[in-house]
Amino acid sequence: MANDRYQKGIKKIQEFTLTHSAENPAGEMDIGEGFKDIAPELSKYVVEFAFGEIYSRPGLNNKQKVLTTISALVAQGTPQIELHINSGLTVGLKPEEIVGCIVHLIPYTGFPRVLNALKVAQKVFEERGVFVTTSDD
Amino acid sequence: MANDRYQKGIKKIQEFTLTHSAENPAGEMDIGEGFKDIAPELSKYVVEFAFGEIYSRPGLNNKQKVLTTISALVAQGTPQIELHINSGLTVGLKPEEIVGCIVHLIPYTGFPRVLNALKVAQKVFEERGVFVTTSDD
Amino acid sequence: MANDRYQKGIKKIQEFTLTHSAENPAGEMDIGEGFKDIAPELSKYVVEFAFGEIYSRPGLNNKQKVLTTISALVAQGTPQIELHINSGLTVGLKPEEIVGCIVHLIPYTGFPRVLNALKVAQKVFEERGVFVTTSDD
Amino acid sequence: MANDRYQKGIKKIQEFTLTHSAENPAGEMDIGEGFKDIAPELSKYVVEFAFGEIYSRPGLNNKQKVLTTISALVAQGTPQIELHINSGLTVGLKPEEIVGCIVHLIPYTGFPRVLNALKVAQKVFEERGVFVTTSDD
Amino acid sequence: MANDRYQKGIKKIQEFTLTHSAENPAGEMDIGEGFKDIAPELSKYVVEFAFGEIYSRPGLNNKQKVLTTISALVAQGTPQIELHINSGLTVGLKPEEIVGCIVHLIPYTGFPRVLNALKVAQKVFEERGVFVTTSDD
Amino acid sequence: MANDRYQKGIKKIQEFTLTHSAENPAGEMDIGEGFKDIAPELSKYVVEFAFGEIYSRPGLNNKQKVLTTISALVAQGTPQIELHINSGLTVGLKPEEIVGCIVHLIPYTGFPRVLNALKVAQKVFEERGVFVTTSDD
Repeated sequence: MANDRYQKGIKKIQEFTLTHSAENPAGEMDIGEGFKDIAPELSKYVVEFAFGEIYSRPGLNNKQKVLTTISALVAQGTPQIELHINSGLTVGLKPEEIVGCIVHLIPYTGFPRVLNALKVAQKVFEERGVFVTTSDD
Repeated sequence: MANDRYQKGIKKIQEFTLTHSAENPAGEMDIGEGFKDIAPELSKYVVEFAFGEIYSRPGLNNKQKVLTTISALVAQGTPQIELHINSGLTVGLKPEEIVGCIVHLIPYTGFPRVLNALKVAQKVFEERGVFVTTSDD
Repeated sequence: MANDRYQKGIKKIQEFTLTHSAENPAGEMDIGEGFKDIAPELSKYVVEFAFGEIYSRPGLNNKQKVLTTISALVAQGTPQIELHINSGLTVGLKPEEIVGCIVHLIPYTGFPRVLNALKVAQKVFEERGVFVTTSDD
Repeated sequence: MANDRYQKGIKKIQEFTLTHSAENPAGEMDIGEGFKDIAPELSKYVVEFAFGEIYSRPGLNNKQKVLTTISALVAQGTPQIELHINSGLTVGLKPEEIVGCIVHLIPYTGFPRVLNALKVAQKVFEERGVFVTTSDD
Repeated sequence: MANDRYQKGIKKIQEFTLTHSAENPAGEMDIGEGFKDIAPELSKYVVEFAFGEIYSRPGLNNKQKVLTTISALVAQGTPQIELHINSGLTVGLKPEEIVGCIVHLIPYTGFPRVLNALKVAQKVFEERGVFVTTSDD
Repeated sequence: MANDRYQKGIKKIQEFTLTHSAENPAGEMDIGEGFKDIAPELSKYVVEFAFGEIYSRPGLNNKQKVLTTISALVAQGTPQIELHINSGLTVGLKPEEIVGCIVHLIPYTGFPRVLNALKVAQKVFEERGVFVTTSDD
């Protein structure tokens, strides 16, 4: 199964994760490995399609890709936002940019979605010992 | 009504529009002026809150703010995306970046939302005589 | 088919419509009559369940029922909001209350959903020759 | 920061909360104080914009404002509904009205969203020792 | 209250549940019995309308009805999907069909909704000792 | 570009379309060909991933795949439902099954989404000269 698209996808995934290794090539990224018993080809779709094709496109840099992802997940209210806030920090988004992106969506999604997302960001920042430099009031 | 926040908001709006002038300070931006008969204070909320406060925050640059907005609107499927694709071009997003952002969302929102958004992007690019430089296949 | 629940539903519907008559008992209310060819029992569900049961519940008055409906439709972005803005006027909601309800949702659904709903309200008010008395700025 | 809009917002918030005091002017209302470390200006947006401007609008009374809010949150499925069921009781909505509003939405949002919201209402009513007077079967 | 539609609904419900008995006619199906204190007529709506009318329609068989339900709940992201994965197994859907349906939605709802639903399916399969026969790679 | 997955996808697509030919291998299926100018690789994603991989999975037959798709699109309210109602008829779903699936969703998505979808079904049935055999009232 280790074809070209799979290899390309795994390599791309590693740009977004901290802890990948030979034994754990996807690091902390959830590539659907937990569904080997009921949907074994799922991780293939994530690696080959989502990362090997979509994330490998030119046009946006990695930081922009994560900002785009986080914004859509704020609008949806899906819990996967935690994973992508982590990825964002890994590719070099400043916590100010992540918070900036979430708060920017108040006029578009309303406060509840934004507050829910900020709670997740706060938790991730704490876990990774990251601080927001605030100077704006 | 021309208080500080309103002035700040109008100035910020002008960064996102091409055609603003003394007579038409908001240019092509829809600031809710069309609702003067039923909700006269609406444009005040758009100018003072959305632009005077939220768009005036530090943390993200204007290009990032539009990418964030477009991403959320793809996920929602709201027609306001047309306006913001226009704003994106005005603040200097390359059409490749706008398309890149929309296509990047396939794994997060599915194809239908993405196809609907691309149709709008295509229309805006045509109207503004903008071309996508494609080299990726 | 003219059982008790159906009669009760039709009577309830007439409280929300202007133009009902013996020939057209549902007036301008869309009770799914247009689907007689493909789903003939649909109007039965609308009349008997939606109006004969749900709209016939105690607890809220008719004005509150329409406000509740409009609010949910703003959040969903479904086009049925036009019908219910009409119903609202018929049961005596003031246009200020309808606009008030829609604009109140800015912090919960964001501006795009609200602007889309206001456009529909504006159209309905025009068609019915109804004006908003505005004094708030 | 204690400008006019902020004062107006805090005063408005107190109409929706039970336990506010000089030390805790917002009472049990979540005005985003928990995000002081990552988004310090968030509570300003909630107080000044959401309450100082939107909740301070004429057109709807406080009970109508909460009904409108709850309805939109049922449609969205966002957890903030708990806070607003509490606010509803504080401004004098009867539990029958809150339940009536949620159940009224079955034809518009389907059963799942309604059942999820009723579970929250049930929890809040229990916490506040409030009972629904039911007579309708 | 034990009218015809109610009896018909209860009988229909029993087709979708394993453990129903004289004392517990709805088995593990959640028919809103838990809301007797705040919305006593809710279970009536579920039994009479949802099951006595909608689930009793011709046109689709029981397996198709559950597939249809699960698909909509994947798109919505509502937690009721657990109950309906259980119902699906009870009416004879193979676990491969349930997983097949959820995974089929990746191009329409994106990965996050699908991953969240698969997690629920995995839990239900474990609880019921059901295995997916996988041969597809 | 005519690799294995592409060929497999095109072949799968043809099972869902009436009018495909050597010149127009995808028939009436929208595979994103209209976006060649701004996102030339889009049709590759549709053909190779959506059809070559996801639609080519075992577990569900083609009729079940379309029912699953239609159900999710009813819940989303996306206009692509028209295309998939057409596909459904092509793979042999009876119009009664398509209507049955849409109407079955009333308790899960509410009436508005269902009415909007029925309108589309009605249009497609008319265009293809297909009739619903109704016997249920």
